[in-house]
Amino acid sequence: MVKKVLKFGGTSVGTSKRIRHVADIIKQEHTAGNKIIVIVSAMAGKTNELIKLSSEISGEFDKRELDVLLSTGEQVTCALLAGALVKLNFKAKSWLNWQIPILTEGDHTNARIVNINIEKINKYLDEGGIAVLPGFQGISKNGDITTIGRGGSDATAVAVAKIFNADSCEIYTDVDGVFSTDPNKIPVAKKIDKISFDEMLELSSLGAKVMQPSAVQTAMIYNIPLEVKSTFSERKGTKILSQENIDYTKSVTGVAYSKDDAKITVVGVEDRPGVAANIFEPLSKAQINVDMVIQNISSDQKTTDITFTVKREDVIKTKKILIEDSGLNHDEILTNDKVAKISIVGAGMVSTPGVTYKMFRGLSDERINILAISTSEIKLSVIIEEEKTLKAIKKLHTIFDLD
Amino acid sequence: MVKKVLKFGGTSVGTSKRIRHVADIIKQEHTAGNKIIVIVSAMAGKTNELIKLSSEISGEFDKRELDVLLSTGEQVTCALLAGALVKLNFKAKSWLNWQIPILTEGDHTNARIVNINIEKINKYLDEGGIAVLPGFQGISKNGDITTIGRGGSDATAVAVAKIFNADSCEIYTDVDGVFSTDPNKIPVAKKIDKISFDEMLELSSLGAKVMQPSAVQTAMIYNIPLEVKSTFSERKGTKILSQENIDYTKSVTGVAYSKDDAKITVVGVEDRPGVAANIFEPLSKAQINVDMVIQNISSDQKTTDITFTVKREDVIKTKKILIEDSGLNHDEILTNDKVAKISIVGAGMVSTPGVTYKMFRGLSDERINILAISTSEIKLSVIIEEEKTLKAIKKLHTIFDLD
Repeated sequence: MVKKVLKFGGTSVGTSKRIRHVADIIKQEHTAGNKIIVIVSAMAGKTNELIKLSSEISGEFDKRELDVLLSTGEQVTCALLAGALVKLNFKAKSWLNWQIPILTEGDHTNARIVNINIEKINKYLDEGGIAVLPGFQGISKNGDITTIGRGGSDATAVAVAKIFNADSCEIYTDVDGVFSTDPNKIPVAKKIDKISFDEMLELSSLGAKVMQPSAVQTAMIYNIPLEVKSTFSERKGTKILSQENIDYTKSVTGVAYSKDDAKITVVGVEDRPGVAANIFEPLSKAQINVDMVIQNISSDQKTTDITFTVKREDVIKTKKILIEDSGLNHDEILTNDKVAKISIVGAGMVSTPGVTYKMFRGLSDERINILAISTSEIKLSVIIEEEKTLKAIKKLHTIFDLD
Repeated sequence: MVKKVLKFGGTSVGTSKRIRHVADIIKQEHTAGNKIIVIVSAMAGKTNELIKLSSEISGEFDKRELDVLLSTGEQVTCALLAGALVKLNFKAKSWLNWQIPILTEGDHTNARIVNINIEKINKYLDEGGIAVLPGFQGISKNGDITTIGRGGSDATAVAVAKIFNADSCEIYTDVDGVFSTDPNKIPVAKKIDKISFDEMLELSSLGAKVMQPSAVQTAMIYNIPLEVKSTFSERKGTKILSQENIDYTKSVTGVAYSKDDAKITVVGVEDRPGVAANIFEPLSKAQINVDMVIQNISSDQKTTDITFTVKREDVIKTKKILIEDSGLNHDEILTNDKVAKISIVGAGMVSTPGVTYKMFRGLSDERINILAISTSEIKLSVIIEEEKTLKAIKKLHTIFDLD
């Protein structure tokens, strides 16, 4: 008998009709002889609706009460889905965060799951029951309701799979799986059958919104195989596994892009030790995340230009800090937020020589200027002008055999 | 220092703006030096919205899950109101049914409160905190969420007032208080300053929807003074007290009406012992509530006509039972659902002779035919043709000095 964790996202449970459909999927899995724990998100749009209400009350709504408020979203879905399963004559019930309990630590709206009591639910599964649990939430040691951040239902699913020692964890969503690039922009994008945790992490942190990165990370640490699949089709999804379970035939698995970066260049700073620290220390203190950094040697050997990227929303704050707090001499600060980050991701890159060259050559052939470069073992990112995004993705998708 | 229970109904907390207004009312009460426990309903319309969702899943939605579903309504209001109070710099927080806990007994969707733990909340009040509690719900001995029926937030308020030994219990609603008759139909209707529990019970069971009858009953049993007042005006409300605290200057306190009755006449039944039992036993078994009963002596001394009233929704069922299950010989069954029940209510009636005569004379003067009569110590009800409802109320309102 196989123990499965099935997680259904907000779109999958967005209407009563869809909830009935989800009940049918669970019915098949249960009838096939599996033990089933279900994790649900709030119905699509509900969390935003509740956040809107709270913001009408206060711009800085009390975080303890925000958690009490938001946790109702998943509670509603739990009850409706459990009711839909009972209607199909299954033994099923909702288990709320405090009834289990799901114990968390950390601040309100940003807690993390530290333990889940398995005894009662395991007994219920043994009796043939289907347990429906709310994602995204738990309770603190004091018995207050806590939430674990947007997209936290993925994290709940992975934590439940780990703590219940489940055989698999299936993430049902509104897309067929993970694609080689954004299928909405590039029609030739292909669904990936298998992808490693590392690659998935790089892709999701680069803007592929299929799964929440910290959930993938937890799955990677505990080696919990995941499967991302569509609630609305019978097609196979994407399996997310550890690298050793994947045969790499291609050097690059996918092409990702994000448009929330901006490039900042500090022109004409003194070229002496400690300058970079002067720039990045106050930014770090202000919680500004610096992504790529490039420093060129200057022609006069006395001054240099330092270029780096931050999130677009941080540009104004960053410039202000550089001018007021860094104590830096410089000629000027240039900012450009009309840039995009394009990345190729692939665990096969390490063992394939020439990937970097091939990428640069491909972009050059399309007359796309590279403004910054950053590399990791399984990823190569470049910053380019935003308007060239589509052209770049298409080219890279083709030259790395992903079409 | 006075301990107050303040209950706010669904319309009073229907929007974020109104919730901010409710926070201002609470602010005044707390600043005046009172200890405050707040009970809230779900935002207007929310409970119906949730019921609609559940009925889209199943016509007979599982009752345990229905309670899990519906309880989110009050939880949302609790969080929003507590957040609004924190925003005003008060120490305030939401206390959910399981955090207190509010212990209930009985079936799902129809439980009753049997105990409330007062320790933690009393400590919180002593520290200057404002406790915001959800109405309408509790948990069972097994730790399942339960609800106590529509309008149950009134019952929660009264139970909390009783168990916390509060000095007063104020029911904030969208009307100014209890009126001598429906102010929407009869413009000369007057707000009643003081009314007894018994009178209030009669009025509310007769269709004045200001408070839930079982809550009034509990308040009567434990002698907890209530005040019904408007959230939206500064006007004084209606105090609901035990009779000995009221000086009656008028024999009649109010005129109520309801339009959900129907009259049924069984013509030509044998006039012998046991006939009435034959009629009403099967109705009682079918959970049909019979209100007034009239039996006339027939001219031939052998057969008689029996007239009684039931709820309109039960007419078809009643007729079917009479024909199929009562084993009764009769000539025919007449039904009339174009009737209204008009009642005069007043604790002063007992000590005032001639009230009955005055009522019948008044109706007769208006050429209104009385189809059935029912009396209690503080109430006198008649069934009349529905189209004469307004005329009857106006006349009675005038002759009993209520204008």
